[in-house]
Amino acid sequence: MGDRLDTVRKCLRQFPEEARELYLNEAVPYLSSPPSPLAFYRDWIGPNKPCIIRNAFNHWPALSRWNPSYLREAVGSKEISVAVTPHGYADAVYGHRFVMPEERRMPFASVLDIVEHKGERTGVFYVQKQCSNLTEELPELTGDLETDIPWMSEALGKQPDAVNFWLGESTAVTSLHKDHYENLYCVISGEKQFILIPPSDRPFIPYELYQPATFCQREDGTFDVVDEPNTEKVPWIPVDPLNPDLQRYPNYSLARPLSCTVKAGEMLYLPALWFHHVRQSHGCIAVNFWYDMEFDIKYNYFQLVESLSKVVGPL
Amino acid sequence: MGDRLDTVRKCLRQFPEEARELYLNEAVPYLSSPPSPLAFYRDWIGPNKPCIIRNAFNHWPALSRWNPSYLREAVGSKEISVAVTPHGYADAVYGHRFVMPEERRMPFASVLDIVEHKGERTGVFYVQKQCSNLTEELPELTGDLETDIPWMSEALGKQPDAVNFWLGESTAVTSLHKDHYENLYCVISGEKQFILIPPSDRPFIPYELYQPATFCQREDGTFDVVDEPNTEKVPWIPVDPLNPDLQRYPNYSLARPLSCTVKAGEMLYLPALWFHHVRQSHGCIAVNFWYDMEFDIKYNYFQLVESLSKVVGPL
Repeated sequence: MGDRLDTVRKCLRQFPEEARELYLNEAVPYLSSPPSPLAFYRDWIGPNKPCIIRNAFNHWPALSRWNPSYLREAVGSKEISVAVTPHGYADAVYGHRFVMPEERRMPFASVLDIVEHKGERTGVFYVQKQCSNLTEELPELTGDLETDIPWMSEALGKQPDAVNFWLGESTAVTSLHKDHYENLYCVISGEKQFILIPPSDRPFIPYELYQPATFCQREDGTFDVVDEPNTEKVPWIPVDPLNPDLQRYPNYSLARPLSCTVKAGEMLYLPALWFHHVRQSHGCIAVNFWYDMEFDIKYNYFQLVESLSKVVGPL
Repeated sequence: MGDRLDTVRKCLRQFPEEARELYLNEAVPYLSSPPSPLAFYRDWIGPNKPCIIRNAFNHWPALSRWNPSYLREAVGSKEISVAVTPHGYADAVYGHRFVMPEERRMPFASVLDIVEHKGERTGVFYVQKQCSNLTEELPELTGDLETDIPWMSEALGKQPDAVNFWLGESTAVTSLHKDHYENLYCVISGEKQFILIPPSDRPFIPYELYQPATFCQREDGTFDVVDEPNTEKVPWIPVDPLNPDLQRYPNYSLARPLSCTVKAGEMLYLPALWFHHVRQSHGCIAVNFWYDMEFDIKYNYFQLVESLSKVVGPL
């Protein structure tokens, strides 16, 4: 029986290798212009492959307008939600807990002050609320861009589920995770560094269960970690792709992360279920479009791989 | 260890159930008209779901023209390849062998004689050569239809790999198998009965290894089964979906075949990797278009399921 289980493990090791041999790219390719909806569906959404699209939103006024002084003028007095953490890691494993940021309401101008180093603050601030915060909290800015990507909406036959605005410090990091969304990530100014891992590498990605908690900043600037009451433990990825603990998680050495930098004026297509870790240049401004993924054949297959990965343990 | 292997088996049992819950239909749906290339890609090719399309080739002259007397006039003197078998099963398991038909060259008119019951013959005759026999052997008929399906060619960004012509007796049966093609199957006259099983049911489909052989008809009309020299055994499905031996292959009882009848003027989209078994009305005429499938994420996942199905054995 043990032999067969070993063979199952071998299948799960070979599957990501075959993905690379069959269809995955060794680096994230660039498209020089936005594709037709059909070509984009066939070449990228269908095969679930990331790419960076250039010249996709040159016509947005945001690309030339959005800088701290314009934003201060346009939305400086608006209250927005800001994620506050001691070290820049929001929604990440910290001290054996899954710790979410303090969500603080503050005027947009205060965030700009922090980004522009005006005045002293402890903690790391990141406008990253993924509840369509651009259209919900900052509707004044929607005249500077489109609130959907027309060829993507046509390809998928639907409008985006959320349009999110991102502005933060260089120390703000998004830990490795995956989303149930087809994601178009547009960098308006600065740049974002992505580490991407395909869903086929799921067998090499460890998950552990953590008590959920939230950072809470005291008057003196230090942070408490406050357990969420009455919540079950949540599964999260304990590996930091920038410094993976391969002694503890040796399987992760078999994963093959792709790194890419998305510069101002470029758009990353980040396919649903791809694991991603994100950093950015200081004050980077970005907007992303989340389109609901289809829970069909690829999701069905992924769920099988996920279940099997949990069952068989280390490969 | 045995417990974990049992859990792997459970995953493989649940996977096809989840496919049905998530996205598969309980019957093959009908489209009332041909879809746009994008909609067809998104709704059917991408999710790998079969459908029957009506009014898709009403404009083909073949639909009104093709009958025995027209075909006798147009191509009666042409030599074509015909599959000849004693009982109608070509490329099927027979007496512990995988037996292929005798491939006989004969005038098209002789096939029409057989279909019209003119004269005595033993054996079952089926024009079914899948080498683009319409364009290769019967180019005189290509003026009566299109040699591709324009919206499918646009959707896939390529021309069909083969256009096949099918004409046979009601006793001619195509045994359960799958192809590496996206298949559009157009019934010109009569009707075809399909039994379809999704790729997600692969864990329930048995395969065994068989010595390849070929039928060879003697002068007296009886058939020999002649082993192919110097060939390795080939894997084939030993189950007849019309009369499955569930004692021997109990897993097959978990498969959920879909049955559908495709009538004259209708087109079946038979997605790549779907298992299918085909029967037909006597003298049914059909044309099908094979488009190469993409060997990308879905194929990669299917290969994993196939490997695992082989490893774990009965579920």
